Amino acid sequence: MLKEILEEGRLATDTALERVLPTQSEPPASIHSAMRHSVFAGGKRLRPILCRESARVVAEGLPDGIDDLGAALELLHTYSLIHDDLPALDNDDLRRGRPTCHKVFGEAIAILAGDALQTRAYEVLSQLRCPPESRVAIIQVIAHGTGTIEGMIGGQVVDLESEHTKPDLKVLEYIHRSKTAALICASTVSGGLYAEGNQDEVAALRLYGQSIGLAFQIVDDVLDVTQTSEQLGKTAGKDAAVEKVTYPALFGVEESLKKADALAETAVTALKRFGERAQTLKDVAQFLVERKA
Amino acid sequence: MLKEILEEGRLATDTALERVLPTQSEPPASIHSAMRHSVFAGGKRLRPILCRESARVVAEGLPDGIDDLGAALELLHTYSLIHDDLPALDNDDLRRGRPTCHKVFGEAIAILAGDALQTRAYEVLSQLRCPPESRVAIIQVIAHGTGTIEGMIGGQVVDLESEHTKPDLKVLEYIHRSKTAALICASTVSGGLYAEGNQDEVAALRLYGQSIGLAFQIVDDVLDVTQTSEQLGKTAGKDAAVEKVTYPALFGVEESLKKADALAETAVTALKRFGERAQTLKDVAQFLVERKA
Repeated sequence: MLKEILEEGRLATDTALERVLPTQSEPPASIHSAMRHSVFAGGKRLRPILCRESARVVAEGLPDGIDDLGAALELLHTYSLIHDDLPALDNDDLRRGRPTCHKVFGEAIAILAGDALQTRAYEVLSQLRCPPESRVAIIQVIAHGTGTIEGMIGGQVVDLESEHTKPDLKVLEYIHRSKTAALICASTVSGGLYAEGNQDEVAALRLYGQSIGLAFQIVDDVLDVTQTSEQLGKTAGKDAAVEKVTYPALFGVEESLKKADALAETAVTALKRFGERAQTLKDVAQFLVERKA
Repeated sequence: MLKEILEEGRLATDTALERVLPTQSEPPASIHSAMRHSVFAGGKRLRPILCRESARVVAEGLPDGIDDLGAALELLHTYSLIHDDLPALDNDDLRRGRPTCHKVFGEAIAILAGDALQTRAYEVLSQLRCPPESRVAIIQVIAHGTGTIEGMIGGQVVDLESEHTKPDLKVLEYIHRSKTAALICASTVSGGLYAEGNQDEVAALRLYGQSIGLAFQIVDDVLDVTQTSEQLGKTAGKDAAVEKVTYPALFGVEESLKKADALAETAVTALKRFGERAQTLKDVAQFLVERKA
């Protein structure tokens, strides 16, 4: 059942992404090819799926046009991946099993393609099919979640600066909360806002998003240690190579997985108010901590 | 008189920028220092000034909170400068007379600082003190003007790809219209939208913005040939060094300046409907083609 829902969300997101991205032949062709190369590289579309399921749980059905919001979230996620992979940052050649954007298109186009995906995301958000009041609230939540203050960029900065330093739990928690959990949380919250959820409903989705966002990153760090590059579709063992501060480095694999389980539990509990309607979101939480790639 | 108005606009913009940017000591400090380094490097604040004067001409007075919109435009302009200066793009060491962002903070932080300025711009735009309907219209205009399809990033891509190629007028016009004029035009249009101008008023500001935007870039290219690095506060002679397609390269300096004058004339004519209220915008058009830096 969960498998079908994830697959349905993935396909709906891909259709929306196809619609909101310029075609490969639209000039300037190089940048549009680069944007599409990274967006259509076989992602799981986790953030859009969380967004649409959050909207569904509030609206008791899928609101019209929700997948444009999901597409915008995926554009933002992809922009961050393209920039993170650059030689000046993580210097990664492989992403989702394919050569990274700058390996194929060069650094200049990769930088601009990342920029352009962010720009296009906000253009799409400004045109969502929900009231203007909801659109500006959604834009604010997403911009904040991807910004420098406890948002995605802030987390990436501290992550980079923590390489080759002594592991510290406070720093580690800041990185996890900001680098990954903030955008995941913005996905569940913006889904709730799109569906015009009330304050309590949005707050429940926020706690759910924060908790699974943290759990997701802990599992990511564990997989970096336990899986091969082939299994992950990206270079494994990178964290240890640059002595990144990670949960498994601080607590070991087993203890880290226990922590992820506890967070999934918190996430599930947060959804209580939605009753049986929240079964999919609960299943997703479970799925995220049990995944192997 | 114009001098005072430009100075008033510059100061008001700087005050707004000071308010919307995190302080240097706010963690992570490195990225906030990098953002501030480039934002407070002595820019003319041309786009914010055009925006506030466009709003003023429509509203017959300065609308409350207009300088937050100007600040967002300047954040976007600055993000584009930081990324353009990177080694993989224009590889420039000097900007507004100061070392470029990556020279001071390294490439990784410079890339992320550019990203963060774009993100923060949209967060500011989502919270502007005008009705949500106007805010989403403004966000759409600005995102489009800085995007890949006849927007800032598209112009930058074609500009990069035109280096060391045979000069071509169509390509040159695409670059000018997109790389520079599109954001300048978004500045005048968004000012008009903020002041809740009607369709005709906004259309007049669009034509004005397009025309002075083109004139501005032509003059920029001429100054790159005729002025020294010291006079410009950035590296002069760069275009010829990489054989960029420019107006002076195609038509010579004199013919290029004539073209700029004609565009300023078009811009001034576009403002007819506003009568004497438009004197400042007319003076700005004149000022832009006569400037020496």
